[in-house]
Amino acid sequence: MPALSLADVYRARRRIEGCVTHTPLLASASLSRIAGTDVHLKLESMQPTGSFKLRGATNALADLAERGIMKVVTASTGNHGRAVAYAARTLGMEVAVCMSALVPANKVDAVKALGARVVIAGKSQDEAQVEALRLAGEEGFAFVPPFDNLNVIAGQATIGLEIMEALPHTASIVVPLSGGGLFSGVAFAAKRIRPDVAMTGASMERGAAMHASLAARRPVLVDEVETLADSLGGGIGLDNEHTFALTQELADSIVLLDEASIARGIVHAYREERLVIEGAAAVGIAALLDARVELKSGPVVLVISGANIDIGLHRRLIQEA
Amino acid sequence: MPALSLADVYRARRRIEGCVTHTPLLASASLSRIAGTDVHLKLESMQPTGSFKLRGATNALADLAERGIMKVVTASTGNHGRAVAYAARTLGMEVAVCMSALVPANKVDAVKALGARVVIAGKSQDEAQVEALRLAGEEGFAFVPPFDNLNVIAGQATIGLEIMEALPHTASIVVPLSGGGLFSGVAFAAKRIRPDVAMTGASMERGAAMHASLAARRPVLVDEVETLADSLGGGIGLDNEHTFALTQELADSIVLLDEASIARGIVHAYREERLVIEGAAAVGIAALLDARVELKSGPVVLVISGANIDIGLHRRLIQEA
Repeated sequence: MPALSLADVYRARRRIEGCVTHTPLLASASLSRIAGTDVHLKLESMQPTGSFKLRGATNALADLAERGIMKVVTASTGNHGRAVAYAARTLGMEVAVCMSALVPANKVDAVKALGARVVIAGKSQDEAQVEALRLAGEEGFAFVPPFDNLNVIAGQATIGLEIMEALPHTASIVVPLSGGGLFSGVAFAAKRIRPDVAMTGASMERGAAMHASLAARRPVLVDEVETLADSLGGGIGLDNEHTFALTQELADSIVLLDEASIARGIVHAYREERLVIEGAAAVGIAALLDARVELKSGPVVLVISGANIDIGLHRRLIQEA
Repeated sequence: MPALSLADVYRARRRIEGCVTHTPLLASASLSRIAGTDVHLKLESMQPTGSFKLRGATNALADLAERGIMKVVTASTGNHGRAVAYAARTLGMEVAVCMSALVPANKVDAVKALGARVVIAGKSQDEAQVEALRLAGEEGFAFVPPFDNLNVIAGQATIGLEIMEALPHTASIVVPLSGGGLFSGVAFAAKRIRPDVAMTGASMERGAAMHASLAARRPVLVDEVETLADSLGGGIGLDNEHTFALTQELADSIVLLDEASIARGIVHAYREERLVIEGAAAVGIAALLDARVELKSGPVVLVISGANIDIGLHRRLIQEA
């Protein structure tokens, strides 16, 4: 891991201050009761764009702007695209966003509302990314990767800083795991500050690319399928440079949740915490409810990654429960 | 207003730091579009006890503890009681909480879960308060008033500080108005920092005691009736010492919302902002949706005071909408 240092994370924090929210760390009475230890929720769902992605995107764009690059393009399941669009507007940069046809309409609309050009391409995150790279080559935009980029990772790592500063005796952190930008960022900062903190990555059972890659000991392709945790879909890239190695080194355990479990997590957040969160953000709660995380003695922090669930879907889930 | 100074507010902030959350100020795209100017939401609903009340209660209890008084009693519609119970636990104080029979079960349970003794007394906030004063006289507890107390007001005023520090050019602030502790605190701090900020108090149509008192130019009694904004119920006290005079001086306008409008506010917060909020907290959103606030040029801040709505009621409201 010599490519990343804690200094990079502090530098990221200086850069993104004022553009992103220092999110609350909320004690959860209901989950503390269930888990038998103090459980806190790190509410990245309260970011202006509704997800943690704003941290990494803002840090990456600020780095480009510092080097005079003012046109950016990205591919995204929605949250990263929305974050890049928002950050580009804040920093006065031109922006195009490529998305797969599987991305929910509410996420597409949200990016458009931020003034970005949206390009729908392919049926997977990887195909959308190919289109973004093509645009980057032909139109002179800088490509902003959704996770496999040191500036993006350092931006997400500021979450780890905030957690450890607020709760230095944190024993375990559960982080939604997809491409690994959030996971490796949070894990890197947290373990640099408290080496024995236990890091658990949580994904959905269906289409968990990082889990499959770790099992194969190299990045592998997985089929992208529909899931309540749609933000966790997509591959990690066969040419993965950073997040695969970082996750391999930093993850103490990985837990996979089925769809019913993720739905229970969403419903629990609504009923007990008055929180509207997306499926990807509910995996930590789901893992605790199902007693799937081996807890060390001491406080647990769950990273609640985002709020951008289709509201009709949310209403159906809480109605059916 | 010589009884209160901005120094008292800074002192309150020092005292309550670490016990209360520096809540996010969230830009609302949907409300900005509707209002035609930047609208921000100050999310006191994210406090550990689910409402702003924790600020004033913590400041008042810390003041008592500094003077060696370690037993407290209060009366409450729920949010203040929960806040006093939470603050007492944090500060290691003994606590009893008196509530009227109209207080929803979820609020009673929440206070009990915090380890406080709960006493159900009477059918109004005023009757519950009489019982609390009796207990204070007979059992040697210090009474912690829900709003008409300078330490409580100074605690709530820290919200005004946070707003003006984050958004110094704020032109208008809309604050839920009940006993006036929240309103006069926020208005005091905001106007001390920016004298021309327009302060609007928002209440429900039914049983708005402060509005009736301002119209009568003296504190008057009102009937307490059921409303979606139950946290705004209750009188202001015929012997009101502080909040009546402060509200009279600091309020530029007051707007009253009917039940259907408050319900629309709750539903809008859920659909457009992914927020679960109680009726009292929705009055500002309702006022904007109904174009009931005369807006000055410049940013508007709505204080979202709490999240403690009965979750079954919330589910019915979003289902019926």
